[in-house]
Amino acid sequence: MFNRRTDLALEMRELLLEAGEALTEIDGVRAEEELLEKDIKVTTVEILDKNGEEALNKGKGSYITIELPNDWWMEQNVYEAACKACAKELKKLVGGNSLENVLVVGLGNRNITPDAVGPVALDYVLVTRHLIRYMPEEIDERLKSVCGIAPGVLGITGLETGEIIKGLSEKIKPSLIIAIDALCSRSVKRVNKTIQLSDTGITPGAGVGNRRMSLDEREMGVPVIGIGVPTVIDAATIAADAIDLLIKNMRENAGGNQGFLEMLKGAEEEDRFLLLKEVLGENVGDFIVTPKDIDEQAEEMSRIIANGINIALHQGISLSDIDRCK
Amino acid sequence: MFNRRTDLALEMRELLLEAGEALTEIDGVRAEEELLEKDIKVTTVEILDKNGEEALNKGKGSYITIELPNDWWMEQNVYEAACKACAKELKKLVGGNSLENVLVVGLGNRNITPDAVGPVALDYVLVTRHLIRYMPEEIDERLKSVCGIAPGVLGITGLETGEIIKGLSEKIKPSLIIAIDALCSRSVKRVNKTIQLSDTGITPGAGVGNRRMSLDEREMGVPVIGIGVPTVIDAATIAADAIDLLIKNMRENAGGNQGFLEMLKGAEEEDRFLLLKEVLGENVGDFIVTPKDIDEQAEEMSRIIANGINIALHQGISLSDIDRCK
Amino acid sequence: MFNRRTDLALEMRELLLEAGEALTEIDGVRAEEELLEKDIKVTTVEILDKNGEEALNKGKGSYITIELPNDWWMEQNVYEAACKACAKELKKLVGGNSLENVLVVGLGNRNITPDAVGPVALDYVLVTRHLIRYMPEEIDERLKSVCGIAPGVLGITGLETGEIIKGLSEKIKPSLIIAIDALCSRSVKRVNKTIQLSDTGITPGAGVGNRRMSLDEREMGVPVIGIGVPTVIDAATIAADAIDLLIKNMRENAGGNQGFLEMLKGAEEEDRFLLLKEVLGENVGDFIVTPKDIDEQAEEMSRIIANGINIALHQGISLSDIDRCK
Amino acid sequence: MFNRRTDLALEMRELLLEAGEALTEIDGVRAEEELLEKDIKVTTVEILDKNGEEALNKGKGSYITIELPNDWWMEQNVYEAACKACAKELKKLVGGNSLENVLVVGLGNRNITPDAVGPVALDYVLVTRHLIRYMPEEIDERLKSVCGIAPGVLGITGLETGEIIKGLSEKIKPSLIIAIDALCSRSVKRVNKTIQLSDTGITPGAGVGNRRMSLDEREMGVPVIGIGVPTVIDAATIAADAIDLLIKNMRENAGGNQGFLEMLKGAEEEDRFLLLKEVLGENVGDFIVTPKDIDEQAEEMSRIIANGINIALHQGISLSDIDRCK
Repeated sequence: MFNRRTDLALEMRELLLEAGEALTEIDGVRAEEELLEKDIKVTTVEILDKNGEEALNKGKGSYITIELPNDWWMEQNVYEAACKACAKELKKLVGGNSLENVLVVGLGNRNITPDAVGPVALDYVLVTRHLIRYMPEEIDERLKSVCGIAPGVLGITGLETGEIIKGLSEKIKPSLIIAIDALCSRSVKRVNKTIQLSDTGITPGAGVGNRRMSLDEREMGVPVIGIGVPTVIDAATIAADAIDLLIKNMRENAGGNQGFLEMLKGAEEEDRFLLLKEVLGENVGDFIVTPKDIDEQAEEMSRIIANGINIALHQGISLSDIDRCK
Repeated sequence: MFNRRTDLALEMRELLLEAGEALTEIDGVRAEEELLEKDIKVTTVEILDKNGEEALNKGKGSYITIELPNDWWMEQNVYEAACKACAKELKKLVGGNSLENVLVVGLGNRNITPDAVGPVALDYVLVTRHLIRYMPEEIDERLKSVCGIAPGVLGITGLETGEIIKGLSEKIKPSLIIAIDALCSRSVKRVNKTIQLSDTGITPGAGVGNRRMSLDEREMGVPVIGIGVPTVIDAATIAADAIDLLIKNMRENAGGNQGFLEMLKGAEEEDRFLLLKEVLGENVGDFIVTPKDIDEQAEEMSRIIANGINIALHQGISLSDIDRCK
Repeated sequence: MFNRRTDLALEMRELLLEAGEALTEIDGVRAEEELLEKDIKVTTVEILDKNGEEALNKGKGSYITIELPNDWWMEQNVYEAACKACAKELKKLVGGNSLENVLVVGLGNRNITPDAVGPVALDYVLVTRHLIRYMPEEIDERLKSVCGIAPGVLGITGLETGEIIKGLSEKIKPSLIIAIDALCSRSVKRVNKTIQLSDTGITPGAGVGNRRMSLDEREMGVPVIGIGVPTVIDAATIAADAIDLLIKNMRENAGGNQGFLEMLKGAEEEDRFLLLKEVLGENVGDFIVTPKDIDEQAEEMSRIIANGINIALHQGISLSDIDRCK
Repeated sequence: MFNRRTDLALEMRELLLEAGEALTEIDGVRAEEELLEKDIKVTTVEILDKNGEEALNKGKGSYITIELPNDWWMEQNVYEAACKACAKELKKLVGGNSLENVLVVGLGNRNITPDAVGPVALDYVLVTRHLIRYMPEEIDERLKSVCGIAPGVLGITGLETGEIIKGLSEKIKPSLIIAIDALCSRSVKRVNKTIQLSDTGITPGAGVGNRRMSLDEREMGVPVIGIGVPTVIDAATIAADAIDLLIKNMRENAGGNQGFLEMLKGAEEEDRFLLLKEVLGENVGDFIVTPKDIDEQAEEMSRIIANGINIALHQGISLSDIDRCK
């Protein structure tokens, strides 16, 4: 099967369910859904064991997906509800881990809009560590120590993000790392509408850029929570989806004609990649699909993530205070 | 037939030729190709009459397409050859029209990368009108009077670009308008590799944004040359191309089986738009395909267009002088 | 007397009053102050006749200055009060003029931070003209028709701003033009803390750039309201102020010694410009003084002006609605 | 004496020489000048011992200042000569240290123009480390391994730059660190015209931002070369210079009048800071003087530094190759 790229555990599970396991659940995977106010849907996928890991091609851990309603960016109170939902789910993932000293990492390339979610979100995160260190008496006690860095991407710095963060982490010894990144989705309906939070960190190769070293607890030595927003779809995925849908439609119209059904099966098994290469050219992997107005949407998603973090970390601070400070 | 969107006359002609008219040329259309140094290919398509207009769905006039080799942006001398090619073809289109007083218009939205070619190119155009007016004695006589404006897009200004440019044109009475815009291609292989110049101005609805009033000689009262670079493909076009290719492959494998062939014909005639809507969602038209590194490529294309204009207008000025001034 | 540059009528009046006319008011000038909530101070200076014009070196008309408290940008409710104050004073100036069809002009150079107030404010202005024209049934009736343009500056476009706006105005026939610009102050305490509104339009040579043609009712044929924020002080003004203060202090210490006093008078009358040229170099006029954090402050001032316009034009629309839309 | 702030060793020396030591040189300091092609002046100040350190208020080491001619940015061949001069002086400072594995650090805040020299220069540095590591066979052997990071500033990250760079340095073990930063000058004639290179690293508190931990060999454990460009002058320095000049002029005119000379002495010794606070307000330190067109000039200075590094590190690579790659 052609590998539609997705970084969302939710979509991996959907793909599997579509692929014929609709009635029985996947073994080693537990999922549950919840509907919050303003039509915000939260799905928690837990990968419990090796079987679940293999089935979803993702590591053991919790993956929480927050889906916002269509046109979410038009209404102030949906925006506020989204910030609160993000804070609530983040706190669930943090669990008993300490929030005393948090390092927020904005992954991705600020100069490429669909890859800039991490750095832009970091712009909206309330950074307090220097204030708490150098002028503690002037700081509201409810503020936790937060610092942040946008390390850039390998192609521009020549440095593995992991090297930079690991080196920094050993110096400042955070109690928790939160890493924000752009993700890749397989469906246009999730782009800029979905936030995934996970206690497994950020896996490499995510988003638009290419990264290699995991930002996770094993590598970093402290808990790492990954937060991501799908901002792009591979162009190849769109093309492959169109082909699949056509074959499905044709199969329904085949009326039991065995010869034709077999031909469709042949078409299905054909090297999909070769076909896509003919459509998208040699550099089939270099093209991405984005909404036209990605700039505004991605900026707002970045703000929601940042404010989710701000609210979760700094108890008793209101959203309007935060929006004013930044 | 599903309407793959393209702003390139070259591609309209290719589509027609593919569609079965490979051997006979299209009536009312004249085309010729030329190969310049550094593998730069120039194709001139002339639409001569009504028949040509209908066949290519474009107005009467000359459309010159400059195609750069792959990886053109890696080599300084390809860049220089591209600037010169652009200047040469622009001068052909200008013909006997006066260059004494040129208004350059950078169309599009500076904040949306694939739509920013016009405004960014304008940044690199040597603007001289104010110098010639206010300090003529200090100005090299070889410099022509050039002014420029990036009027913004309807969705942001609330103003038709045509209204702004017409009003300005009536005040400053240019001898020629050159309008630069981002275009839409139907093939990934042309994106950020192709420059189209035309003496028919810029037709509305081009590029990423939506515009309504033509920038052409009839509306503006002075000759208008349009220069465009395809920076995006409609996502729907990519998906439709994938479907077509699949059907074509299946037809080749049908081995003359009439039943299969008819079934494929049915699939071909199915409402392609409904299929794409299922893949791309209700807002099927809102998604675009771009290369990941569009920022850099589009900036370089903008520079080539700007320098093409600079070299064509200001006789005897060298490229390195120009690159230093800007 | 060395000419400290200021675009604020308020400061011209202060200069005069300082210069010895402290007890008697200036003839032909009427001034009054009002204190609004949150310590926002509003001063209205009316220049009534020729005498007033000469005294303040500004045209006949009303000049309203809104002064915000120190550290105004830290508190959400000061921000909100400032937006409302700006709206209220703007409506006073508009008086009986129609708001049916407003053109907002963002003057200045977006790429030079202290000159970008106009273009940035325009980003936050609710532009509605296209919606009202092309989809009137979907638009809230309380919204007025507003369009906007940031024409760029002479040095970049080669075009007089007046030419662009006059040409556009003749095409779209607005009922009112509102022009926003960066201004020059003579005192650090007003920089990024003061908004001046005037029914005399914008006078040329204001702000950082150099402009020549007035944007006022006489030139444009429709009423023009100018709104400005001082973002810079000439470096020469700062240096001259330091000199004046020193001389004043020395005079106080001279103890009536006539010889000293005459010497000081000599120093005072010395060619101040030559002295400043020695400090600031040949290009004495090319240096400006700004706060270090001008970027953030100027952005917030731009938002206040934009929201003042939004609230004044669109009855019944709340600030949080507006902030969400933009 | 009021402390005019400067980060240039050259200016510290000038200040001292002006202050009466014009004929005798300063002990513990050695200085020499050289004139390169295109009127580029190179001054080398060596601080040899404790006495020199105290005299110039800078650490022991070599400080090389490259001064470009006025209007240097107008001519391509001055630009090229400046790049080469920067490369040549950098190589002198590197001396016998290894260039095998260089970390370039772009200090400062990218969002504040006069503080952005470091991050912008880094954009133009050829970064190769990832290519050499992951695809060594495709890389020209003459290229050295270079990586780079722009760590942001304390106020935004909450992190000491020193912590970030030290942590990273311990991970990747560079043979040399080159740190680029904006500096503060005391004279408008040096702003955006001067490059200082030093083998003492970058001292804290430099430039517009405030930094605390030194980037030098003692802290980092590897040689650190600092490269800086003065982009601002403290507003207080300009004002103080004006006062000094006035007093000097008055003294010359005092004609031996002892009473007046004493009064001037009194004025000179007066608390200069109080005077400046009256001119510049309570936040006297928050205002800076910059040229109006700082954006363009600072960008070009950044390119010169970057290309100086590129030429110095990568033997046999030409400037036009480099300008194309970036």
